[in-house]
Amino acid sequence: LDKPIKVGIIGMGTVGSGVVKILIENRDHITQQAGVSVDISRIVVKNPEKNRAVDIDPYLLSTDIHELINDPTVPLIVELVGCPNGSSAIAKDWILQALAQNKHVVTANKEVIAKYGTQLLEAAEKSAGGLYYEASVAGGIPIIKTLQESLAGNRIQSIMGIINGTTNYMLTQMTRFNQSFDSVLKEAQRLGYAEADPTSDVEGYDAAYKIAILSSIAFQTKVPVESVHCEGITKITAEDIQNAANLGYVIKLVAIAKRLKDGIQVRVHPTFIPKTHPLASVNDAFNAIFLQGDAVGDLMLYGKGAGMLPTGSAVIADIIDAVRNIRFNCKPRLSVPNKTEHISSINDTVSRFYINTKVVDKPGVLADIATALGEENVSLQSVIQMGIDHNDPVSLVFITHEVKEINLRKALEKVSQLPTVYKIANVIRVEGANINGGTN
Amino acid sequence: LDKPIKVGIIGMGTVGSGVVKILIENRDHITQQAGVSVDISRIVVKNPEKNRAVDIDPYLLSTDIHELINDPTVPLIVELVGCPNGSSAIAKDWILQALAQNKHVVTANKEVIAKYGTQLLEAAEKSAGGLYYEASVAGGIPIIKTLQESLAGNRIQSIMGIINGTTNYMLTQMTRFNQSFDSVLKEAQRLGYAEADPTSDVEGYDAAYKIAILSSIAFQTKVPVESVHCEGITKITAEDIQNAANLGYVIKLVAIAKRLKDGIQVRVHPTFIPKTHPLASVNDAFNAIFLQGDAVGDLMLYGKGAGMLPTGSAVIADIIDAVRNIRFNCKPRLSVPNKTEHISSINDTVSRFYINTKVVDKPGVLADIATALGEENVSLQSVIQMGIDHNDPVSLVFITHEVKEINLRKALEKVSQLPTVYKIANVIRVEGANINGGTN
Repeated sequence: LDKPIKVGIIGMGTVGSGVVKILIENRDHITQQAGVSVDISRIVVKNPEKNRAVDIDPYLLSTDIHELINDPTVPLIVELVGCPNGSSAIAKDWILQALAQNKHVVTANKEVIAKYGTQLLEAAEKSAGGLYYEASVAGGIPIIKTLQESLAGNRIQSIMGIINGTTNYMLTQMTRFNQSFDSVLKEAQRLGYAEADPTSDVEGYDAAYKIAILSSIAFQTKVPVESVHCEGITKITAEDIQNAANLGYVIKLVAIAKRLKDGIQVRVHPTFIPKTHPLASVNDAFNAIFLQGDAVGDLMLYGKGAGMLPTGSAVIADIIDAVRNIRFNCKPRLSVPNKTEHISSINDTVSRFYINTKVVDKPGVLADIATALGEENVSLQSVIQMGIDHNDPVSLVFITHEVKEINLRKALEKVSQLPTVYKIANVIRVEGANINGGTN
Repeated sequence: LDKPIKVGIIGMGTVGSGVVKILIENRDHITQQAGVSVDISRIVVKNPEKNRAVDIDPYLLSTDIHELINDPTVPLIVELVGCPNGSSAIAKDWILQALAQNKHVVTANKEVIAKYGTQLLEAAEKSAGGLYYEASVAGGIPIIKTLQESLAGNRIQSIMGIINGTTNYMLTQMTRFNQSFDSVLKEAQRLGYAEADPTSDVEGYDAAYKIAILSSIAFQTKVPVESVHCEGITKITAEDIQNAANLGYVIKLVAIAKRLKDGIQVRVHPTFIPKTHPLASVNDAFNAIFLQGDAVGDLMLYGKGAGMLPTGSAVIADIIDAVRNIRFNCKPRLSVPNKTEHISSINDTVSRFYINTKVVDKPGVLADIATALGEENVSLQSVIQMGIDHNDPVSLVFITHEVKEINLRKALEKVSQLPTVYKIANVIRVEGANINGGTN
């Protein structure tokens, strides 16, 4: 065996603790996989006195990041600070400094990669080191290696991912127990599945960072986070979920990236998925990414998208890759975005839609709405009157055929002005071919 | 860019045609991924006059394998001959010859890897070249890279795979249309999904090769194909499938490998899987591998397990990996089995069982059977009398709790001798925790 390779770790939160735990508990196994033993040089933390989830020798702890980054005996830096507000620019600078010294850098930091990925990858390309970020998206699921390496011969056509565990847990609970968003959120917060400020999860921002990273790799193009159209799940009601079930769908927060004829589209929003689609049965806090390549066809990866050990598993895989590259003086795969694909506006997106309207219960209302929709070339796949007993208002629920978003918006404007329509309660996009026989 | 790297291809059947097609159609994309252009040196075929699915320049065709293997300008050999009877020893020799000349070798040949994997990997370790075989298991699904690289920090606990598309298609058809094995087999043969001699698929041998390869990687141990307990699907009846559905299960041909306290177990057999398990909704010719690692937890990969382009996709990924290793003078990951784990006998396997008995329709029969089972410590989870109307014989269907296989066999021997029991119609193992809430 060659002599041990020293790793410096920055951050000892949830993921850092998982990484240290796996490095210690699976030490022999990792040595064998890496070909050398992987020794922790030190772990930089803010507060060395704090109690930790994992027992570590106190002499491993340090508070001096720059001393670590400048240590010539440490060729591998593992950056696991997470991103308290505004800190991603600081973490980016650490990574740049390490790369400038030809170190290999592993990070689990989705915000840093989503915001500064191009800059970091260009720096990695110039460096004798490398940049590894499998853990930044979907925890233990090896989606980045799959896109970069296993599908390297494919042109990727589309990605649809359930890549936020918190919202998937919430939607699963709403579906199982017919609960409201608010009550499920409270429960999720009580159980620690949702944060005290749940904005990043429930508004879809977390998923937007992740799909920006994945689509950038898949399409080899810059995808600024701000270009990702993003809608959260806060407006989803128990009624929408019940309507979806009656129509053969489930509602999921889906991150979508598609190759178009003249560019790409990237978006995050609640989505009707046919019950027979592989993503439909991804429940609780599980994540899954369903993609299509021109050679591989349909492929789905399913697993735990977060948590100390699943995310730790991805970081360890990157560490072992980096250690092998250090041993062999080899470059890792770097998906430097070398194209500038046009990113389509949401207005130009073509999809099907679920529309839930509240209307006066009298004859002719359906005809009025269908006419208003038809004037903007919105045609209907199905119409269901949900209230059986004659209440007022009643629900008229529509699924449209494919239509350009801007046309749908215009049509809905007309519908909302009809005197017989109280309101448009919700509009949700419908995606996904029915895998078991035909599209629907 | 460095100068182009030349690839020699042996075999131009289904997979070979897919590989050539992708190399040609996605040429620029592959050049960019590999960092150099990848040029086909020549393609060795038996009959150069034959019509091909893919247009190729005739000057690329050759019939001389040894001339290719000995060509010092070709550092990369892609072996795609498939395995007509007995040819795997020949293909093994080609691979050994290429490795001896420090070439990198990509193969899609499951039989060669399952039979001679240890020998080939040891040769690859000594060679400056390498051995790549992603395409040998589950077509386009990157299960080998995932096990070797993405889960390198994990100790794998179990693998459950639907890794034979033909039988999965057949069982799906039997389930959907309540058809018999024989009629579905005929239809599958007519459509080209099953071969004229379907033995390798329907008896589980194909899946046995594949799980031998996967378990060898996962547990880093030799797994001779002969040590894989193997049962096919020929005895599965429409009645069994109906019974499974009534009890909340589907029947799949599953390849299973588990780590035990004192060794491993590896087996292929029809299996009751809970409907809520992720493998239960893997239908038609799709494959999926569900595994558990100590860090990653549950992980599933789903996709197309066969076919020209999906398998070609895996071969191309290996080619690109090999080209990069050639460029950087780097070794690939090689899972040389360095352990000799005890492989448990099927008699010692502990599982739950579905038992379908045909009995005389009179009181006391259930008690007789339960007593006979109880004497061998077989306890029952559920009992259902399937024939509602009083026919004779009636079906009594049991699901047992966990029991050692040898004990179950003894108990069934007793049951079959009861005067009130006409016969034991079928016995099928039950596996898989119910993912959505508890085991069942």
